[in-house]
Amino acid sequence: MNKDRLLAFSDGVLAIIITIMVLEMHAPHGANLSDLRPLVPVFLSYVLSFVYVGIYWNNHHHMMHTVNRVNGKILWANLHSLFWLSLVPFVTAWMGQNDFAPFPMAFYGVVLFMAASAYDILERQLVAHHGEDSVLSRATGKRRKEKLSVLLYLSGILLAFVQPLISLGIYMLVALIWIVPDKRIERALESRQTKL
Amino acid sequence: MNKDRLLAFSDGVLAIIITIMVLEMHAPHGANLSDLRPLVPVFLSYVLSFVYVGIYWNNHHHMMHTVNRVNGKILWANLHSLFWLSLVPFVTAWMGQNDFAPFPMAFYGVVLFMAASAYDILERQLVAHHGEDSVLSRATGKRRKEKLSVLLYLSGILLAFVQPLISLGIYMLVALIWIVPDKRIERALESRQTKL
Amino acid sequence: MNKDRLLAFSDGVLAIIITIMVLEMHAPHGANLSDLRPLVPVFLSYVLSFVYVGIYWNNHHHMMHTVNRVNGKILWANLHSLFWLSLVPFVTAWMGQNDFAPFPMAFYGVVLFMAASAYDILERQLVAHHGEDSVLSRATGKRRKEKLSVLLYLSGILLAFVQPLISLGIYMLVALIWIVPDKRIERALESRQTKL
Amino acid sequence: MNKDRLLAFSDGVLAIIITIMVLEMHAPHGANLSDLRPLVPVFLSYVLSFVYVGIYWNNHHHMMHTVNRVNGKILWANLHSLFWLSLVPFVTAWMGQNDFAPFPMAFYGVVLFMAASAYDILERQLVAHHGEDSVLSRATGKRRKEKLSVLLYLSGILLAFVQPLISLGIYMLVALIWIVPDKRIERALESRQTKL
Repeated sequence: MNKDRLLAFSDGVLAIIITIMVLEMHAPHGANLSDLRPLVPVFLSYVLSFVYVGIYWNNHHHMMHTVNRVNGKILWANLHSLFWLSLVPFVTAWMGQNDFAPFPMAFYGVVLFMAASAYDILERQLVAHHGEDSVLSRATGKRRKEKLSVLLYLSGILLAFVQPLISLGIYMLVALIWIVPDKRIERALESRQTKL
Repeated sequence: MNKDRLLAFSDGVLAIIITIMVLEMHAPHGANLSDLRPLVPVFLSYVLSFVYVGIYWNNHHHMMHTVNRVNGKILWANLHSLFWLSLVPFVTAWMGQNDFAPFPMAFYGVVLFMAASAYDILERQLVAHHGEDSVLSRATGKRRKEKLSVLLYLSGILLAFVQPLISLGIYMLVALIWIVPDKRIERALESRQTKL
Repeated sequence: MNKDRLLAFSDGVLAIIITIMVLEMHAPHGANLSDLRPLVPVFLSYVLSFVYVGIYWNNHHHMMHTVNRVNGKILWANLHSLFWLSLVPFVTAWMGQNDFAPFPMAFYGVVLFMAASAYDILERQLVAHHGEDSVLSRATGKRRKEKLSVLLYLSGILLAFVQPLISLGIYMLVALIWIVPDKRIERALESRQTKL
Repeated sequence: MNKDRLLAFSDGVLAIIITIMVLEMHAPHGANLSDLRPLVPVFLSYVLSFVYVGIYWNNHHHMMHTVNRVNGKILWANLHSLFWLSLVPFVTAWMGQNDFAPFPMAFYGVVLFMAASAYDILERQLVAHHGEDSVLSRATGKRRKEKLSVLLYLSGILLAFVQPLISLGIYMLVALIWIVPDKRIERALESRQTKL
């Protein structure tokens, strides 16, 4: 079974997720600069979530590039991953509208953590389907970035109850770590070509 | 006439349906854990409907894989199927916002029943267009899962007026039955390859 | 310049238009059957508009099937056509929420009339780009259905101020006339193949 | 890495942006012609923004036509460009709902200016990736239209505080300058073919 429709559907869902978040930024009733002030945390939350969905799309793009075929399990692992990402607009709005309060900050971290776990499951399904010697398997390697992100998400969730802005800083840090598309996959693809 | 645009359009509509449902889950005004409590039934309804739309997308994906060409009747049968699925966000919101009350539960079942019937019509149109000996025709066979689902939907609709939570359980059960992508199609495809 | 992205973009816009209309059907607060009653005209409007957008998508699908290449003028003619269709959700909501009152009924007709005119311009641009002897040119022929629709839309707009339900009947009639995908194009394609 | 998914994702996002703007045009509660009057500036803002997003889509279509391959930097430059365009619905609503007041008019210009800058960065990344002798590089040439637009946007932003309707006129003027798809790219493509 080929991967084309899985990509088309995922692109559609990610494009919608990234775009509907902006609907939470309601145009204020007044027309002064001060009317925009309450929107500042909403806007910052939007930027952060836009970057996160962008990261997922980029990595999905890279990961799927190495994939040849899909099966039923992979379709569901992909849907599972999209499910958690579909909750990003909700937690983004909750966080932004409550000035980065503890519970919304913690829940934002929970959703990011679940999305990362779901992505990890998808990656493992793809590796299982293509073999330990596949490009993807060699590219992901020791998963250091994945392990670090999990630790950071967990600290972000816990520290939200101490000082929510620390959590915000941590979530920004994870985004920075991932903003570079997965060089490992590009390298693995190149090394394969070199061998040929 | 080829099937590419039918797939692209269906993927678009299903991606939008699955994603706009989350818009019904409005971020609460307060920032405490208790503010999320009224959203629990809304969230559960969202999960169930996400799984249902995911099932339709998966099965659509499998079914269309066996199809070579489409005609005007098939385009309309497909649109008819998408029409009923487009009502899923509405009944999901009604059900979730009213804590699984009898009428919303029954209507949720009616929409699922109509979506299933419309999918059935689409399948028959495809079989009619490709012949009784086609992969799809042999794959669907005696339609035992289809007949069972219809019975379960009808009991879900009726039992909503006795105890709505039984209906909820029934709808979850039907989802479980279908969550496995149509193995019959994968088997039929394989058996064809074996013969060759 | 090839037509693939024009199709992808149009499919995206039409898929979104057809799906966001359902967002205007807000889940009622109560959970009784009577709470659905005020939604009946909204639902009927949704069905009618769903059919109209479906007709446009089907005909767009058929028309573009005969097309080989596009240019800048065609891109804008297509965007112009999508612009008027993008107003369908607005007039649908206005019509449904006001129980088919005269002005909303007339405006619904105006938007349909403008969408039909824009589609006509697109068709002429395509014919101009492909030559009078092209499949599309021969398929559209004397444009009897187009001329009849224009007359019917105009009567629908005027009669809205006499009896809006007559307009509703007229708009349903036009939908019925077009619900059959453009057989002329299928015939023209076949006759070309026969000659070869 | 090929460009197909970048196009599919961009088409999706642009299709959603262009369509959700219409959601800001809420159907009025009354059913008289006078009930539409407050919507006139909202409608005009919608038309202007529809044209702008249409221009971006058209130019993106033309620019990407000359491109063969993409890398991680280009993916992010493209996302950055989509980010600013995703703010168009917000500033459109703010402008339309406040009858073209100074601050909304200025912010509309800021978002257009940022979108143009982001598009410029994307174009430079593509040129850098394909070489100074590529079709795209020769097509964009001296960037006279780009420089003129920047000047016009800046005057639009400043003049909003003198007379916002002048800004509106300026933004319409820039749209007119760009409404013609990039002839330079069509010419550059043709001249290449002539040489061959």
